[in-house]
Amino acid sequence: MHRYRSHNCAQLRKADVGSTIRLSGWVHRVRDHGGLLFIDLRDHYGLTQIVADPESPAFKIAETMRGEWVIRVDGEVRARGEEAINPNLETGEIEVFASEIEVLSAAQELPLPVFGEPDYPEDIRLKYRFLDLRRDTLHKNMVMRAKIIAEMRNRMGAAGFTEFSTPILTASSPEGARDFLVPSRIHPGNFYALPQAPQQYKQLIMVSGFDRYFQIAPCFRDEDPRADRLPGEFYQLDLEMSFVEQEDILATMEPVMRSVFETFANGKPVTQKFTRIPYDVAMRKYGSDKPDLRNPIEMQDVSDHFRDSGFKVFANILANDPKAEIWAIPAKTGGSRAFCDRMNSWAQGEGQPGLGYIFWRKEGEALEGAGPLARNIGEERTEAIRLQLGLEEGDAAFFVAGDPKKFAIFAGAARIRAGEELNLVDHERFELCWIVDFPFYEWNEDEKKIDFAHNPFSMPQGGLEALNTEDPLSLKAYQYDLVCNGFEIASGGIRNHLPQAMIKAFEIVGLDRQTVEERFGGLYRAFQYGAPPHGGMAAGVDRVIMLLVGAKNLREVTMFPMNQQAYDLLMSAPAPASAQQLRELALRIAPLKKED
Amino acid sequence: MHRYRSHNCAQLRKADVGSTIRLSGWVHRVRDHGGLLFIDLRDHYGLTQIVADPESPAFKIAETMRGEWVIRVDGEVRARGEEAINPNLETGEIEVFASEIEVLSAAQELPLPVFGEPDYPEDIRLKYRFLDLRRDTLHKNMVMRAKIIAEMRNRMGAAGFTEFSTPILTASSPEGARDFLVPSRIHPGNFYALPQAPQQYKQLIMVSGFDRYFQIAPCFRDEDPRADRLPGEFYQLDLEMSFVEQEDILATMEPVMRSVFETFANGKPVTQKFTRIPYDVAMRKYGSDKPDLRNPIEMQDVSDHFRDSGFKVFANILANDPKAEIWAIPAKTGGSRAFCDRMNSWAQGEGQPGLGYIFWRKEGEALEGAGPLARNIGEERTEAIRLQLGLEEGDAAFFVAGDPKKFAIFAGAARIRAGEELNLVDHERFELCWIVDFPFYEWNEDEKKIDFAHNPFSMPQGGLEALNTEDPLSLKAYQYDLVCNGFEIASGGIRNHLPQAMIKAFEIVGLDRQTVEERFGGLYRAFQYGAPPHGGMAAGVDRVIMLLVGAKNLREVTMFPMNQQAYDLLMSAPAPASAQQLRELALRIAPLKKED
Repeated sequence: MHRYRSHNCAQLRKADVGSTIRLSGWVHRVRDHGGLLFIDLRDHYGLTQIVADPESPAFKIAETMRGEWVIRVDGEVRARGEEAINPNLETGEIEVFASEIEVLSAAQELPLPVFGEPDYPEDIRLKYRFLDLRRDTLHKNMVMRAKIIAEMRNRMGAAGFTEFSTPILTASSPEGARDFLVPSRIHPGNFYALPQAPQQYKQLIMVSGFDRYFQIAPCFRDEDPRADRLPGEFYQLDLEMSFVEQEDILATMEPVMRSVFETFANGKPVTQKFTRIPYDVAMRKYGSDKPDLRNPIEMQDVSDHFRDSGFKVFANILANDPKAEIWAIPAKTGGSRAFCDRMNSWAQGEGQPGLGYIFWRKEGEALEGAGPLARNIGEERTEAIRLQLGLEEGDAAFFVAGDPKKFAIFAGAARIRAGEELNLVDHERFELCWIVDFPFYEWNEDEKKIDFAHNPFSMPQGGLEALNTEDPLSLKAYQYDLVCNGFEIASGGIRNHLPQAMIKAFEIVGLDRQTVEERFGGLYRAFQYGAPPHGGMAAGVDRVIMLLVGAKNLREVTMFPMNQQAYDLLMSAPAPASAQQLRELALRIAPLKKED
Repeated sequence: MHRYRSHNCAQLRKADVGSTIRLSGWVHRVRDHGGLLFIDLRDHYGLTQIVADPESPAFKIAETMRGEWVIRVDGEVRARGEEAINPNLETGEIEVFASEIEVLSAAQELPLPVFGEPDYPEDIRLKYRFLDLRRDTLHKNMVMRAKIIAEMRNRMGAAGFTEFSTPILTASSPEGARDFLVPSRIHPGNFYALPQAPQQYKQLIMVSGFDRYFQIAPCFRDEDPRADRLPGEFYQLDLEMSFVEQEDILATMEPVMRSVFETFANGKPVTQKFTRIPYDVAMRKYGSDKPDLRNPIEMQDVSDHFRDSGFKVFANILANDPKAEIWAIPAKTGGSRAFCDRMNSWAQGEGQPGLGYIFWRKEGEALEGAGPLARNIGEERTEAIRLQLGLEEGDAAFFVAGDPKKFAIFAGAARIRAGEELNLVDHERFELCWIVDFPFYEWNEDEKKIDFAHNPFSMPQGGLEALNTEDPLSLKAYQYDLVCNGFEIASGGIRNHLPQAMIKAFEIVGLDRQTVEERFGGLYRAFQYGAPPHGGMAAGVDRVIMLLVGAKNLREVTMFPMNQQAYDLLMSAPAPASAQQLRELALRIAPLKKED
């Protein structure tokens, strides 16, 4: 018989009754029932109930065991009595009568329990991550994570993509966030950087003549602690395609992403055909470029109903600012003064002056729009608003006024709030959509200059000609996001593969040719030697996994996370370097001065 | 029709004749045949021949095109004449008569040609890697690399392993080579390290209750330039299993590795049952712990034939040193004075005093052992040696004498030399074997102390009891290598999962408990809380790929390698950091002093 096991802890069935078997695993729980000891033995695969009776030579050892000891058990499989069958356990029809127990590894007093799902301080959990990971939820999340990533790989392979790894020791990339630097010993005073994303490399792979690249790529950003992002590293499903337009990428990736979701949605419905929503429309309807489409509320422009109306606040806003608009947030079933007042208070808590509303109720036989706004604008306008929004008795609408650029985000938050409060949101589904036609540039109010709105490597719609002839702030990019349930889960674009267009695009944000050559030397050089039209995207692997397993925190889907202060409590990193290491790297620690 | 292509460049067949199609790709070659222009159009998938005749509107553009321009071609598929059919090309039965050509991206004068396989300086190739990668061999190598890795993943998945990523920003590991450090901004003066291997993490994964882990893992070592290793990063197929003994790991991984080899061996034979060779035997037979078993030569101890013989040099060596032995390197077909002299000169070039030999030839009807040694020891001993070695007329044997510990490596080199020179080695096969029973400790002559021979995390055979009771230098480890064609392609061991045994094992090399706790804190702590017996191994992905594609240099199987000076010529890394970056990291550059 094998030294440690003839079966794993999820394998034994009624058909095995009578067999002499061997199991190994962790002592999950020990219970004493009238002299008999019942041990739940746990391994990676499942649980099996072990019974030690006082007659058995195993009993003496069983008595001494505590939770999380690792043991080997030899014994005989017996059927459980009808009343003892556990239908929730794969091995629930049998139990093993132990004849011999060997302790393979004892455990000290546990700093946190593994049995059950206790609420324990994060720092203890991270320091003893190897115990926390033994808990059922975390164990399942990690296995699920691995399966989701394997499924991504399979789907990408089936779609004709080839996985290539790109360097992790590379050049500092000046695009986005802060780089992690790696001092070079062989070139003292010089530094590699860890990649924020393989953006330039994947474009170089296309210029090198490969056609469909993907990678489950580790990415690194040295950002300040944020609740929704782990410090340090994260993973992207990164991909790029040659000889494509935007439509090809969406058409290729939509079935991949849909089927990844469907495979792991656990029966929840997944959007079959992802709507494509232009950025401008998303901002107007949802006040967000990552709308949660499970929320049925769509905002509408109702400016005309307030123009020159008796509600002077709105009428004046519209009269004084040609950019001003009034948007309505229709709220089905929200038609009570109590709810409307609650929304108003919430808005004030958000720093707004308040949130105007109308709600509709029956007054005798007649449908009446109630609230201060309705009184001020009169019955006819109130009814016109109701008809435009398609509302009924018992419904409400909220109103925000001003320059949409300034209020859209707040309006979006009010839309989310109303939808959630009124239980209009069906949480048991995955709603996916593409957001397209992002602006190429944006106005940087602080520096009074034009900036790239998103990815500087994207191709502006209209190409070089549009860059040369149109108002930069009116340009759209071939750039798109994939959104699920209110989270951006992927982002991509068609790249600007033409050196002249690249130079012009950077010129508009005030960076000259020399700067482009310095910052993106490899890529810029490559574009001089025959570059195919290409584009791609990158999906946030961790975020997709969180959505699919229903985790609220990235630490629940990451094997060995650092804490929010970017400290690894398990391995004690970072730590001081030795004097010799510093000398080899030609570095000195310069204590931070207060004025720095 | 699609904006860029209706087909790729490997797709068109005779059945497509008459179709109007669209292709995009790179201009691989342009030839002018009697006014007609023939363009080989290349993409990721293959080549298609385009014809532009002077009548066609495409001709004017075709005339201006040069190598590596990216173009789109519209045209009609026509059958080639019998004489023009190219059976070596997938699309060799057809050609496309161009009706329209669009230049998608022009190319400047090329710094290195893509057509053909020219011998170009390495620094140009690396700076213009995107051109070098377009060459057929490199392109194929990269695709093969991806396929081999995908196959490894599939096989590991099929064998019940789950892929988990482990952190890349982690703690400095004091085991082996030099770490790359990453300064922490949030914890100034402290450093993360990039993992040399996920050794501790994979063991922690086992202690966390997972059963079969694997990972295609990026590993990082800051080593000085070496011809057989790329600076910086490399990949391992890393794996670990719980509740196993050595035999389980060999039995699990042998079919995985065999089938990876068989899948990509291109018809070359692959060892079906990997021999298991104890380390001591390998050293004696092959003078190496990574023997090339394609070389049929096996060395033998022939000391007794020289003891008290007329060849005083050897007789004295044996008489004066009880550890001394004489080994023979039998060399079938090497029986000429010219060959033996060549081997002797080679040995002198290696810093040896020479290489004694006997060769056998017919002298009339009699078989005669010739050469100075034979003369000195006489006919009877010469014949006894011949019989022991199983040699015949026309064969030779070479002899090395002394302490085998000192000469074994040289003897192994002589064995390789003889085998290669005599064409005894069948290069068209993959010979795999396991080397087992490595010594646990070794004597460090410089520091006059005992050191770990290999992995300090391995379990010594006999466990804690052996550590307590036996001569440390006699202990074997549960440690094994997988060897192919003379290269170590994987290495592994059963781990020491018992804290007491770990403490004892380190104590013997002079490291106390506190040091163990400091250096391996996470793992040592984990072993206190129920650790399963476990073991695993790690295979060198890059090396396996090199063997399978027949590459001589790691740069031929790596997409974006640095040069031997650890400089990335494509991306210009490493590079100086900005003053702000250094300030954020609390670092100063300390110029290397001469005395450092």
